[in-house]
Formats: sequence, C-alpha cells, structure tokens
Amino acid sequence: MSREVLVIALGGNAIKQADQRGTTEEQFHNVDVTAKQIAKIAKAGYRLVVTHGNGPQAGALLIQQEESDALVPAQTLAVCGAMTQGQVGWMMQNRLGFRLKQEGIKTPICTVVTQVEVSDQDPDFRDPSKPVGPFYTKEEALHLAKTKGYVVKEVKPGIEKGWRRVVPSPEPVDIVEKESINDLLNGGVIVIASGGGGIPVKKNGDGSYSGVEAVIDKDRAGFKLAQAVKADKFLILTDVEKVYLNFNKPEQKVLDRLTVKESEAHLEEGHFLAGSMGPKIEAAIRFVRWSGKEAIITSLDKALEAVEGKTGTHILP
Amino acid sequence: MSREVLVIALGGNAIKQADQRGTTEEQFHNVDVTAKQIAKIAKAGYRLVVTHGNGPQAGALLIQQEESDALVPAQTLAVCGAMTQGQVGWMMQNRLGFRLKQEGIKTPICTVVTQVEVSDQDPDFRDPSKPVGPFYTKEEALHLAKTKGYVVKEVKPGIEKGWRRVVPSPEPVDIVEKESINDLLNGGVIVIASGGGGIPVKKNGDGSYSGVEAVIDKDRAGFKLAQAVKADKFLILTDVEKVYLNFNKPEQKVLDRLTVKESEAHLEEGHFLAGSMGPKIEAAIRFVRWSGKEAIITSLDKALEAVEGKTGTHILP
Repeated sequence: MSREVLVIALGGNAIKQADQRGTTEEQFHNVDVTAKQIAKIAKAGYRLVVTHGNGPQAGALLIQQEESDALVPAQTLAVCGAMTQGQVGWMMQNRLGFRLKQEGIKTPICTVVTQVEVSDQDPDFRDPSKPVGPFYTKEEALHLAKTKGYVVKEVKPGIEKGWRRVVPSPEPVDIVEKESINDLLNGGVIVIASGGGGIPVKKNGDGSYSGVEAVIDKDRAGFKLAQAVKADKFLILTDVEKVYLNFNKPEQKVLDRLTVKESEAHLEEGHFLAGSMGPKIEAAIRFVRWSGKEAIITSLDKALEAVEGKTGTHILP
Repeated sequence: MSREVLVIALGGNAIKQADQRGTTEEQFHNVDVTAKQIAKIAKAGYRLVVTHGNGPQAGALLIQQEESDALVPAQTLAVCGAMTQGQVGWMMQNRLGFRLKQEGIKTPICTVVTQVEVSDQDPDFRDPSKPVGPFYTKEEALHLAKTKGYVVKEVKPGIEKGWRRVVPSPEPVDIVEKESINDLLNGGVIVIASGGGGIPVKKNGDGSYSGVEAVIDKDRAGFKLAQAVKADKFLILTDVEKVYLNFNKPEQKVLDRLTVKESEAHLEEGHFLAGSMGPKIEAAIRFVRWSGKEAIITSLDKALEAVEGKTGTHILP
C-alpha cells in the first residue's frame, strides 16, 4: 500500500478533562469528540496507529486498589496499566468505529494490549521521578514507604497532602507486540496500541518479560511505536494549536516550523515545561532525527488541518 | 495455511483458584501453568485462538468500584469487563510468549480488546439471572436497588449476606472485532480474544454500539468466536478430565464420546449443572451442530492429549 502511515499520540484531555470527575459517561463523551477528529484524518486517506495517555484512569485505579486492599488484593501498577489499555482502548475503538461509519469508512479498528520493554539498568530506577496515584500527608506517605516499599516524595511543599508515590519513568527500548501491530496495519486495520506508554516490562535472563513498577512517558513510547511501524508522520495532539516560545509572557512567540537543531536549542534554553511540552518536543525531535520526516504538534480540533500543513507546529530535519 | 484452527476456552481456575485471594503474583503463577499447556498445543502445530473467563477479576474490580465511589467515580460493568480483558490478556500473552519461546516457537501473540454484540430484546434483559459483584445484606441490597437502579436478588436464602446484584446474561449475537481477529490469525499470530465473554454492546439505531450492563457467558461467546474464525476444533477447558453422568453419585458414568443427540438428551435430563457443566455442553453442542466438527471438554493438564484423542469428552455430530 502506498498510503502514508500516521502515528497519533493523544493527550489526557482526549479522554478525561481536568474539571471532570471521570465518569464512564464523561469519558465516552470526550473520546467521541476525539474520534470525530481521527475519523476525518482516516477519511483523508491516512493509515492510522493511535496511542494515548492513561494518567487519570491509572490514577483512579490506583486509588481504588488502595481503598479496597482489605477486601481484595491491590493489583500492581503494571496490571493497572494493562487494565487502562482495555478501558481506554475499548472506548476509543467503540466511538471511532461509529465515527468512521458515519464518514462511510469500513476500516476495522483493533486495540492491541501492548508491552513495552525497558532496561532495569535505566538510571530512573535509581532515582524515581514520576508521581503516580493519590496525594498523601507526610505520615501516610512514610507509612506506605515502610509497609509497601513505595518511594515517596514531597511534590507540593507546604500543603498538608503534598506527598505522592514516585515511580521510575524509564526509556522505552522496544515495543514487544510490534509484529502484530504491523500485521494489523498492513491488513488495513486502524490500530490502537501502547496505551499509557505501554505496560512496562523488563527482559529477564531466561528470555521472559516481567512487569515492572514504572510508568513510561507516552510520547516517548509513541516515538518507539512510530519507529516500529515506520511512520511517515508523527502527530502529537495536545491542548494548544501551536507551540510557543516564552509561553504566556508578553514576548510570547508562535512557532510554525522548527528544525531539529532549533528545537534542541529551545529545549536547552528551558522554553518547554518538563512533564508538559518538553517530552512532546523531545519525542518529536527523536522521530525527525530517526526518520528524516516530519513531526507535528497541535490541538485535537486542528489535527487534520495540521496534517495538511495548514496549522500546528511542524518539526523538520 | 492448512494447519487446523483450535479455539480454546479457559475456565476461571486457569487464572485464579478458588482458595486464592487473587494477588497479581498468584494470578501470574496460574496463568503460567496454563501457558505451558497451551504452548504444547501450539508446538503440535495448531493455530490458536484463546478465550477466557473473568469472573474473579471482574468481581474484584466491582468491589473496588463500590468501595471508592466517594473518591473516584465507579465505572460501569462494561468498562470493568474491558479492564479485565487488558489485565488477563496481558498476563496470558506475557507468560504464553515465554513458554512458546521455551518450546522454540516464535509465533507472536496478540490480545484483541473485543466487543460482543447482544440484542436488547434478549429475554434475559427482562429477568436478569447472572449474579455479579459482592454479597450484600438485604438492607444494603435494597438500598443499592433504590440508589443505583440495580436489580438485586436473594441468591443464598437464610444467610445474612445472601443478596447480590443480578444482571442479564444475553445471548452473544456477533463478535464485533472478528475481522481483526481473522487478520491476525491468518498472519500466523496466536490471538487472545473475547475475554470474559466479551464487552457486551447493543447496536443502536444510528449504527453505533453502546456498552450494556450485562455479562455474556464465556462458553457461549467462545462458540461465536469459534464460528467467527471457522475453527476446526473447539476445546473447552475446565477442572475435570472428562464429563460424567450422575456426577459424584455411586452410579457415576464417564463419557468419552457423545453425539449431539445424546448430549441434548443428557442435558434435558438435568445431568449438567447450570452455571457449571451445563453451559459448556450447550456451547459444545452449538459448535458441533454448526460445524459438523468436534468439540472437546477436558481439564487444562490433559489439553493436548485430549486434542490428540487420547482423553477428554468428545462431542461429535
């Protein structure tokens, strides 16, 4: 097939908005809005692989694991990750199926439960950085550290419940299910994969994989996915139409096109927030360096226009 | 390809045993034991589609949804079903991947998040029959009926917590993701699909599917899956090596081979328990009637021997 392959990385707002509680109904509504936009891109002729975050869903599951631990055993973080792939994958394939149908497209959609390999030598295992789950008081946090072996940190100094569990956020090394993902894509299927950055696994001496208590950045994993399917374009959707320098300051400057070198320079100058625009720019740089092709950062509602070159921030070789 | 396609339906004990709490570690251990047996069948040359129950996993999730409802919104039963597909699918593909590797087999494995269509005209919607989630006192049950609209029933009369929520268990009509499942199978992939009987959805007037609060019997859904992939054999794994007449009575009689007519007669005579051997025999009958081929009921540890005709109960045209 000659049609271009596009990997789309969806941000958290595509599934749950910050001001929502996160009921099933709310999430289906948001996913439907997202599905309409993705269906337009499919209609324009692109072959699609979709990945997504799972922060709010995994956060809710982690709270549920803790609250009910006396009644049913809390499952590990890796299992919660697998659960959210089922949850968000279903919502997405369900609504996207309908929105494609409305566009007259019969392409099947398949959610692939995806493991992503990490190295247990990754430096982040020595100094975990990614906060997960609920906020705790200092006493609660230290108790959990003692009883469950959690690494805890004060992430919001000065407030009572300012502590959280932190877990490693290691680099993704490989998409374990890449062969199946490619089979499906080559068979004309729209694939939803590597949700929440993938289920993090490490490779053991005997060749088996074990789940690890970690969270992989979804944009970094999105790049590995783009690599695995040899994507022609990597589209990162977030809540802004374009990337800015000096964002929210008087001297704010919009960026339409950026070379890899310019992007790296801006990144070093600290223009992009860690945990927000930073990882997106990094993932985009990696993709463009590797592929010699284009990565695009834009908002959900401008996705197709951005793919067509009409808006968004385009990162180029 | 000429190799035979085998659909394997795994019972609950393949994932969590009745005397276990259901920690992640326990479940991985059980799944590994299962994976060893499935790997032997793969090595014997069969192309495999695996489906599984989710009773204990969904039960645990439902308890967690209720216990934490004040903190995070309880997700629907359909979402919990989707979550368990991610959870069990991951555990299975993880351990099966390893056990195949040990047998020198490189076949990829893929878990497909699967929706199964039901009819909202199904009679079970008028008289729900399937108990789900925790046990309640009468007062708790009636309170939930009032506040959440649950249908509740006294399922164990005479004991204090003898009440449960009951949901419909409608007939599966179609496997929504059958095209992707066949793509993967034809591409040489071992597919894990329709876990927990599938995520139950109904078709709306506009062509969209919505999740419904129901549970589809996994053996019935297993038959629909066998139909969707045109299976050559349908293997139902449970905790007994063979099916018996007058089970656990002095006149107990083992069954090696049964025709469809004999099976139906025994079923009518009430030899097989509803919710236990009954649905397995029914699903086997449906498969044999439809395909003119063979269904086999046996235990996990005898799976390959049964496929080779050396043991198990074989249901034939």
